[in-house]
Amino acid sequence: MAYVIDLNADMGESFGSWTMGADSDLLKVVSSANVACGFHAGDPLVMMTTCQSAAKHGVSIGAHVSYRDLAGFGRNFIDVEPARLKAEVLYQICAIDGVARSVGSRIGYVKPHGALYNTIVHHEAQALAVVEAIETFNVASYPLALLGLPGSLALQLADERGIRTVREAFADRAYTAEGTLVSRREKGAVLHDVEAVAERMVKLATTGTITAITGEEVAVDAQSICVHGDSPGAAAMAASVKKALVDAGITIKAFC
Amino acid sequence: MAYVIDLNADMGESFGSWTMGADSDLLKVVSSANVACGFHAGDPLVMMTTCQSAAKHGVSIGAHVSYRDLAGFGRNFIDVEPARLKAEVLYQICAIDGVARSVGSRIGYVKPHGALYNTIVHHEAQALAVVEAIETFNVASYPLALLGLPGSLALQLADERGIRTVREAFADRAYTAEGTLVSRREKGAVLHDVEAVAERMVKLATTGTITAITGEEVAVDAQSICVHGDSPGAAAMAASVKKALVDAGITIKAFC
Amino acid sequence: MAYVIDLNADMGESFGSWTMGADSDLLKVVSSANVACGFHAGDPLVMMTTCQSAAKHGVSIGAHVSYRDLAGFGRNFIDVEPARLKAEVLYQICAIDGVARSVGSRIGYVKPHGALYNTIVHHEAQALAVVEAIETFNVASYPLALLGLPGSLALQLADERGIRTVREAFADRAYTAEGTLVSRREKGAVLHDVEAVAERMVKLATTGTITAITGEEVAVDAQSICVHGDSPGAAAMAASVKKALVDAGITIKAFC
Amino acid sequence: MAYVIDLNADMGESFGSWTMGADSDLLKVVSSANVACGFHAGDPLVMMTTCQSAAKHGVSIGAHVSYRDLAGFGRNFIDVEPARLKAEVLYQICAIDGVARSVGSRIGYVKPHGALYNTIVHHEAQALAVVEAIETFNVASYPLALLGLPGSLALQLADERGIRTVREAFADRAYTAEGTLVSRREKGAVLHDVEAVAERMVKLATTGTITAITGEEVAVDAQSICVHGDSPGAAAMAASVKKALVDAGITIKAFC
Repeated sequence: MAYVIDLNADMGESFGSWTMGADSDLLKVVSSANVACGFHAGDPLVMMTTCQSAAKHGVSIGAHVSYRDLAGFGRNFIDVEPARLKAEVLYQICAIDGVARSVGSRIGYVKPHGALYNTIVHHEAQALAVVEAIETFNVASYPLALLGLPGSLALQLADERGIRTVREAFADRAYTAEGTLVSRREKGAVLHDVEAVAERMVKLATTGTITAITGEEVAVDAQSICVHGDSPGAAAMAASVKKALVDAGITIKAFC
Repeated sequence: MAYVIDLNADMGESFGSWTMGADSDLLKVVSSANVACGFHAGDPLVMMTTCQSAAKHGVSIGAHVSYRDLAGFGRNFIDVEPARLKAEVLYQICAIDGVARSVGSRIGYVKPHGALYNTIVHHEAQALAVVEAIETFNVASYPLALLGLPGSLALQLADERGIRTVREAFADRAYTAEGTLVSRREKGAVLHDVEAVAERMVKLATTGTITAITGEEVAVDAQSICVHGDSPGAAAMAASVKKALVDAGITIKAFC
Repeated sequence: MAYVIDLNADMGESFGSWTMGADSDLLKVVSSANVACGFHAGDPLVMMTTCQSAAKHGVSIGAHVSYRDLAGFGRNFIDVEPARLKAEVLYQICAIDGVARSVGSRIGYVKPHGALYNTIVHHEAQALAVVEAIETFNVASYPLALLGLPGSLALQLADERGIRTVREAFADRAYTAEGTLVSRREKGAVLHDVEAVAERMVKLATTGTITAITGEEVAVDAQSICVHGDSPGAAAMAASVKKALVDAGITIKAFC
Repeated sequence: MAYVIDLNADMGESFGSWTMGADSDLLKVVSSANVACGFHAGDPLVMMTTCQSAAKHGVSIGAHVSYRDLAGFGRNFIDVEPARLKAEVLYQICAIDGVARSVGSRIGYVKPHGALYNTIVHHEAQALAVVEAIETFNVASYPLALLGLPGSLALQLADERGIRTVREAFADRAYTAEGTLVSRREKGAVLHDVEAVAERMVKLATTGTITAITGEEVAVDAQSICVHGDSPGAAAMAASVKKALVDAGITIKAFC
């Protein structure tokens, strides 16, 4: 049996004179790049060069849409009205789609960023706004998928509207016995042992299970694994995860 | 012989809680709407509703691209590097194009706004940046025209690259004997007599000439007439120009 | 017995080329001006001219501080970390204080705007952040008061720290039998009858009570009355409230 | 004879989640910190912590004011109207002054940043706007100095108004035979030899001269030396310059 999984990471999060991330390292590792669209990070020039690099490496591009929040890097919940949020998400998707096409590529999916990602796990009005933005784009242009957290309301609403949904696991995060993420506020939520992390992801890709923080084996429904590049050692951990997956005979392949 | 001309106006220049312009009045008058793209005015929600209204009225949509300058409304020259400017213009075109398509329309042209409009009349590097942004979009998507000032360097560079160019006259502006605009700093530069303005535009549309401030008849090469809606009486003047054109048997028709 | 009350209104909410409000009308009416500090509205030039006008009219100036949110006009809750919020509020207070001093005046109080105003009625961490920003300023410079909603957590925390607190009533809002505002989502929450509004405020200023939406007389602890100028007729209503107060022998006087 | 000179560097240029500079290293080296005020870099929280650190190290604080240009890091000329520029500069001075006072310090001078620094060397209207902003602050509060380029128009205008002016040399830049900076576009404009740079600055501090790129000894009128921390090796070069100065018996001392 052939195992296949996607590796995704956030990219293009520099802005103007400020740089962030290890994009050139990560592009050698991942199959999908979540590219910032200018609302939490990423100016138009960064977007162009990031899309160019992704295209050159054969990496799929996703719209990493966010609340309008450069100062907070999109990490704070904003109680924006759904109609405005829908328009803001659509604007970002359109902008990155056009930029990607201008360098000979195109986007394949949408992954909300930061606080928006977390909010649409449960906030119905905002989840619907994001889903409707994607639906609007898909009707007018071509079908994008939504990449998100297993069990999130946004994915459920997207499923109901016939939008393709893709679920992801987090390489460096601990899971509860219920298969959800251990809160970052709790001890042990973030994993630092590179080898253990790589091994967990091989098990996930081959068996669909992860060992919970409490010891149980729990099923985690994920077609993509999220890795990071924004802290020291993160890109190295991502590379290790990839190597372990490849060594285990698993194919790293974008889902779109 | 049948005379045809386009009427264009800036629209969608509200932002958040701030409103500007007389868009609903102007949409009954013009054939082309220059829609702000979020850099000098126009937030995503305003862009969506403006594109919807334009589509409903059968009005063509153009990308009203600008320097990144909300605080200055795009009215100040910014010495931004050409590569950054090109990316910023492309980003705006892509965003408004996608938003327009999402409401069942699409954009047909680009008209730079404010200081950028004036700068690319003569500033080669910035003119080239704008033209290359359009060229990049056109290659990847579909051909947009560039709407600008007769004699401007940007139009010349666009012509050289095979981009369709469209020239415009300004309904409420005086012209020199050389066929250029009288500087706003000079007396008599802006015309306020509604009837006289309407009459001038009928003559322009039928004979291709305008009476200069010094009395001569000068040729003005224009396929579009720019009218305004951002001051008291402006929308009324625009309506008068349209009525006079129609009464004279001239067809008001978008150039794309 | 001599009755005294303050009248306050939001001002300086224009931004760049966008105008808002009826500041020149309101300055003839109110004793205290809540001047925007650049985070939800008000650019530095607007701040200068607004402070100049307020000073000229003998109107007290307050810092109308907000979340960083121009696109949303500060009307959306933002879950910003308290340390960042404290710094942002302090920054705004310092900026408007300096601008006010530069035109020969100075600020006397802080009134949070929009969503921040509503949030610190109950959100302890953000209320504390606002209070600490004021406390920090007061220790370093001179004592500012906090103007807010009776019963709000922010006022209570400010009281505990020895910051002077001032309570306000809303001229055009209905009150519950508990003396709180009827939610804007409910029918009858906003009052439009100019004469009735004026009469209610005279009663408030002389007896400290307001007739609730359910008919009871309820005590409302308020040393200031908030009036508006951002909708048609609002400035006229504000003028009527003032006239009624003055006619009833009540002195309109800033609280600082 | 006792030689005294100031060492200044830009600081507090992080913004939100983006970091920049080697502030903690530089604070051990310099006597004056040019702290960004939020217009090209530096958010309110960064400003607070930077002022706290500077105060703790006994380093003087200057307002590093800029055009409103986060995306361009203040490096592009903006043709903003002088009245608006004056208000923007005043706003920034007031904000950083208040923040500095809130941590028990205060600012002593203003140093324009980036494109604004270069523009006011020759652009009269903008130079006057900056000078008037300082003058306005000085009248209302206490006297700040202006730190700038020898020979610049801004310093001349400041002198005429009785504002204290301080001139600076650049440690890592080559000078022409006329005592002006060699343009960055020319070869050899930026010096990389740490020892040579240190030696040049010792000579400057003791003799007031620098060896021009063409070999002549030229007089450079400077009471401060500008060092950098925003590139690899820059902070180390700054430390070397300081060590060489101290070893030569020169006192490093803030000018205010």
